[in-house]
Amino acid sequence: MAAYDYDLFVIGGGSGGVRAARVAAALGKRVAIAEEYRFGGTCVIRGCVPKKLYVYASQFPEHFADAAGYGWTVAEASFNWPTLVANKDKEIARLEAIYKRNVEGAGGETFHSRAVLVDAHSIYLVAEDRTVSADHILIATGGRPAPHPALPGHEYCIFSNDTFDLKELPKAIMIEGGGYIAVEFANIFHGLGVDTTLVYRGQEILSRFDMDLRRSLHETMEKKGIKILCPAVSERVRKTPAGRLDVLLSSGQTLTVDQVMLAIGRIPNTENMGLEGIGIELGKTGAIVVDRYSRTNVDNIWAIGDVTHRVQLTPVAIHEAMCFIETAFKDNPTAPDHDTIPTAVFSQPEIGTVGLSEDDAVKRFPDVEIYRASFRPMRHTLSGRDEKMLMKLVVDGASRKVIGAHILGPDAGEMAQLLGIPLKAGLTKEDFDRTMAVHPTAAEELVTMYKPTYRVKNGERV
Amino acid sequence: MAAYDYDLFVIGGGSGGVRAARVAAALGKRVAIAEEYRFGGTCVIRGCVPKKLYVYASQFPEHFADAAGYGWTVAEASFNWPTLVANKDKEIARLEAIYKRNVEGAGGETFHSRAVLVDAHSIYLVAEDRTVSADHILIATGGRPAPHPALPGHEYCIFSNDTFDLKELPKAIMIEGGGYIAVEFANIFHGLGVDTTLVYRGQEILSRFDMDLRRSLHETMEKKGIKILCPAVSERVRKTPAGRLDVLLSSGQTLTVDQVMLAIGRIPNTENMGLEGIGIELGKTGAIVVDRYSRTNVDNIWAIGDVTHRVQLTPVAIHEAMCFIETAFKDNPTAPDHDTIPTAVFSQPEIGTVGLSEDDAVKRFPDVEIYRASFRPMRHTLSGRDEKMLMKLVVDGASRKVIGAHILGPDAGEMAQLLGIPLKAGLTKEDFDRTMAVHPTAAEELVTMYKPTYRVKNGERV
Repeated sequence: MAAYDYDLFVIGGGSGGVRAARVAAALGKRVAIAEEYRFGGTCVIRGCVPKKLYVYASQFPEHFADAAGYGWTVAEASFNWPTLVANKDKEIARLEAIYKRNVEGAGGETFHSRAVLVDAHSIYLVAEDRTVSADHILIATGGRPAPHPALPGHEYCIFSNDTFDLKELPKAIMIEGGGYIAVEFANIFHGLGVDTTLVYRGQEILSRFDMDLRRSLHETMEKKGIKILCPAVSERVRKTPAGRLDVLLSSGQTLTVDQVMLAIGRIPNTENMGLEGIGIELGKTGAIVVDRYSRTNVDNIWAIGDVTHRVQLTPVAIHEAMCFIETAFKDNPTAPDHDTIPTAVFSQPEIGTVGLSEDDAVKRFPDVEIYRASFRPMRHTLSGRDEKMLMKLVVDGASRKVIGAHILGPDAGEMAQLLGIPLKAGLTKEDFDRTMAVHPTAAEELVTMYKPTYRVKNGERV
Repeated sequence: MAAYDYDLFVIGGGSGGVRAARVAAALGKRVAIAEEYRFGGTCVIRGCVPKKLYVYASQFPEHFADAAGYGWTVAEASFNWPTLVANKDKEIARLEAIYKRNVEGAGGETFHSRAVLVDAHSIYLVAEDRTVSADHILIATGGRPAPHPALPGHEYCIFSNDTFDLKELPKAIMIEGGGYIAVEFANIFHGLGVDTTLVYRGQEILSRFDMDLRRSLHETMEKKGIKILCPAVSERVRKTPAGRLDVLLSSGQTLTVDQVMLAIGRIPNTENMGLEGIGIELGKTGAIVVDRYSRTNVDNIWAIGDVTHRVQLTPVAIHEAMCFIETAFKDNPTAPDHDTIPTAVFSQPEIGTVGLSEDDAVKRFPDVEIYRASFRPMRHTLSGRDEKMLMKLVVDGASRKVIGAHILGPDAGEMAQLLGIPLKAGLTKEDFDRTMAVHPTAAEELVTMYKPTYRVKNGERV
C-alpha cells in the first residue's frame, strides 16, 4: 500500500467527491482530492444552493402582494440585482470554505488543480506540474449544461451556470428546455420581474413527473404571466442592432429578448482527463460506465455522481460516496440504492414527489387507486391568490401499498422528503389513514383521503 | 325506531358534531343537529382557523425585513387591523355556511337553538320552544376558555375568543398562560406590532412538549422582543385613570397594558343543558365521562370532542365522530385511538411534534438514542435573521423504533403531520436512514442523522 502516495485520490470537489474524501480520511486513509475550480461543485457553486437562494429572492413580490388581504399596505418595492448576486457570493464562498475545511479537518489533502490520469495509479496535477500515485482513484467530476452547437447563434446563449452572475437582470428572457432547471429558472426570472418565455420541444413540461402535476404547474405558471410555448424549439438566434436577441422559433414566431438560456440537458465532464488513454469505458453520452458498486472497468478506479449519469442529484452522489467507502475501504460491498428517491422541483408553486406517477403505476399494476385533492391553500383564502394546491396518492390495490405521492404547492419539497420514509418502507394506505391529522395544515389532506377519487383497472379508469 | 323523531340528535355544531351528523345522515339515518351560536364550533369560528389566518397576518413584517438581504428595498408597511378582522369574518362566514350545508346536503336537519335534555330520548329546543325525540343523542358542545374569578379585576380581562374581534389593536398586551394558545397569541400580537408580555406560572412555557423545543422557542421569542415572565402570575388587574390596565404580578412588578388576555386553560360546556337532570356522569372539571367508545353512563347518549376533555384537538373530535358512527350505526364497535397524535404549535417559529419527548422516553425506555440538529434555515443565510431550526429524533435503542420527533422552525407543523405516518407505523431509525435526502430542504436533516448526538441509558446521559 505504501507503494503509493495516497490510498485514495479523488478527482472533483463536489458533493460526492468531498464526502468520499472526508470519510475516507476520517477512517485514517491517506487521501487527496483535486478540484480545478471551486470546492462545492455544481450543488454549492452553480446549482442547488444559489438556485434556492434565488428562488427565495423571487418569491418576495408575492409576499408583498399577499399582504394586502391581511391588512397590510406595502409601498412599491424595488429590487437590486447586484445586491442579490453579491450576497449570494458571500454565502457560496462561506460554504466552499466549509467543504474544503471538512476534507482537510479530517486529514485529507486538497489540490486546486486539474487532474489527469496517466495510468491506473498515476495522476498528473496540471497546476503543480507533478504526478502523484494512488491505490484507489475516484472520479467525481460531475457534469455541465449541454451545449447546442447546431443552433445558429448559440454563441449568444447562456446556461444556468451563467445566470447567477449576469451583470444585469434582463428585461426579457427566453429559456429553452422543459426539465426542472428550465422550469425553476423561468419562475425565478418571472418572480424578479423579468418578462419570461419558456420554450420546450415536448408536449408538456417536466416529463417523467406525474401528468396532473405537470398540467397544473403549467397552468399556474401561465396564470402568473409566464409564457410557455410547447411543443416548440428555437431555430436561430440573432443579435439585433439594439443589442438584443431575436429568436426564431419552429412555430414561425420571433421572440425579442435580452438573454436566451439553454437548459436542454446536462452532460458528464469526462474530456481531457486521460480516461481514454487508460481505457476507461465511457457510455454513448460520454458518461463513465460503472458496475453496481460504482466501479469502472479498471479495477481500482471508481466513479460516482453526475459523471456516471445515473441519477443526477446531490444526495444520490453523497449516497454513492458512502457506498463506495463501504465497498472499497470497509470490506462491505454496498450497492447504491436508486429506488424510490423523493425529489423536489423548486418551481413556484413547488413540486414534491416520490414513487411512481399514475401513468407508470398503471403500466405496472393491474389495480391502482388514485386519491386526489385539489384545494386553495389556507394562506390564499385571504391573500386572494388564485392558486390551487394539488395532492395525489397512488395506491396498489392488491398490496394496499402507497406507491406514489405527488404534491404541487407550498412546501411540497419538505413534504416529499418526509413522505419518502413511509413509501420507501412500503407502508400501506391504511398506515396513512390511521395517522391523526394535524389541523390546520396542508399535509393533513394526505392522511384524510378516505375514498379513492377513481381506480384504474388493467389500464382503464373505472 | 320510528317511535322517535330522529335516529340521531347531535347537540353542538362544531367539527365533531357536524362530522357525526353528516356521516349518519349520509348513511340514511334521520338526523338533526342543534347549534345555538354558529356552525363550525371552536375550530372554525374562534380557534384554529382564525388563529392561523392571524398567524399569517403577523408574519408579514418578517417577510418584509427578510427581503433586504435578497436585494429588495421595501418602504415602511402599515397595518390596518379592521381590514384583517373584516376579511377574517368573510372567510369564517364562508366556512360556517359550508359546515351547515354539508349536514343539510347529506339530508340532516339543522336547528339554530340551544338544546336541553329533558329525558334520555327527549330534547327541548329553546329557540323553537318545542321538544323532539331521538333514539341516539350525541353531545358535542365543546369547551371554552376557563375564567379566573379569583383574580381581582378579572372583569377587565379578555379571552382568546374575544381577541379576534377587538375594536382596535392594543398598543400593549399581557397574556397569561404558558400553553399553546397563550404562546400562539403572544407571537401573533408581537408580529402585528403590539408590545407583548407573556406571564406564566410554570418554570417554562409549553409543558408536555420536549424541553429542547420549549427552551429554544422561549429564547427565540425573547430575541424577537416578546417579554416572557415565568414563573409569575397576575395578582390584581386595575383600570388606570387613562383607561389602561395595571397588572400587579406575583414578582411585585406592575405591567401597564391595554389588554389582558387570559389563556389559563379550557373547560367543557356542560352547564344548563339538562345533563344532571337525567343523571349523566360528569368528571370533576365538569367534563362528560365516557367509556372507550364515547358512550356516557346513559346507554343511548354519547359524547365526543372537547366536552369529554380527552384530547382537545379538532382532528381527534372528528376521529371520535367517525368511531362513534361505526359503533352506534354500523355494528362495528370502534374505540378512538388516542396514541401517537402529531400536533403543531403555530408559534413563530413553529413547533411540530409527534411521539414521546426525550424526558418521557427515558422514563419508559432503558436505552434511548437522541439525534439532534440545530442549524440556520437556508432562507435566513441571506436574510440574516438570527434564528435556528431545531430537529430531534428520539429512538428506542432496543427496538430501533423512532418514538419521538420534534421540530422547531418553518413548516414544522407540515413536517409533524407526515412524520406521524412512520411513527404511528412503528418504523425504525434504519427506515429513516435508507430514505434518500431531498436537497436543499430542511427536512432532509431528519433522514441524514447518522450518529446519535448522545444516548441516555437508564436515565443517565452517556
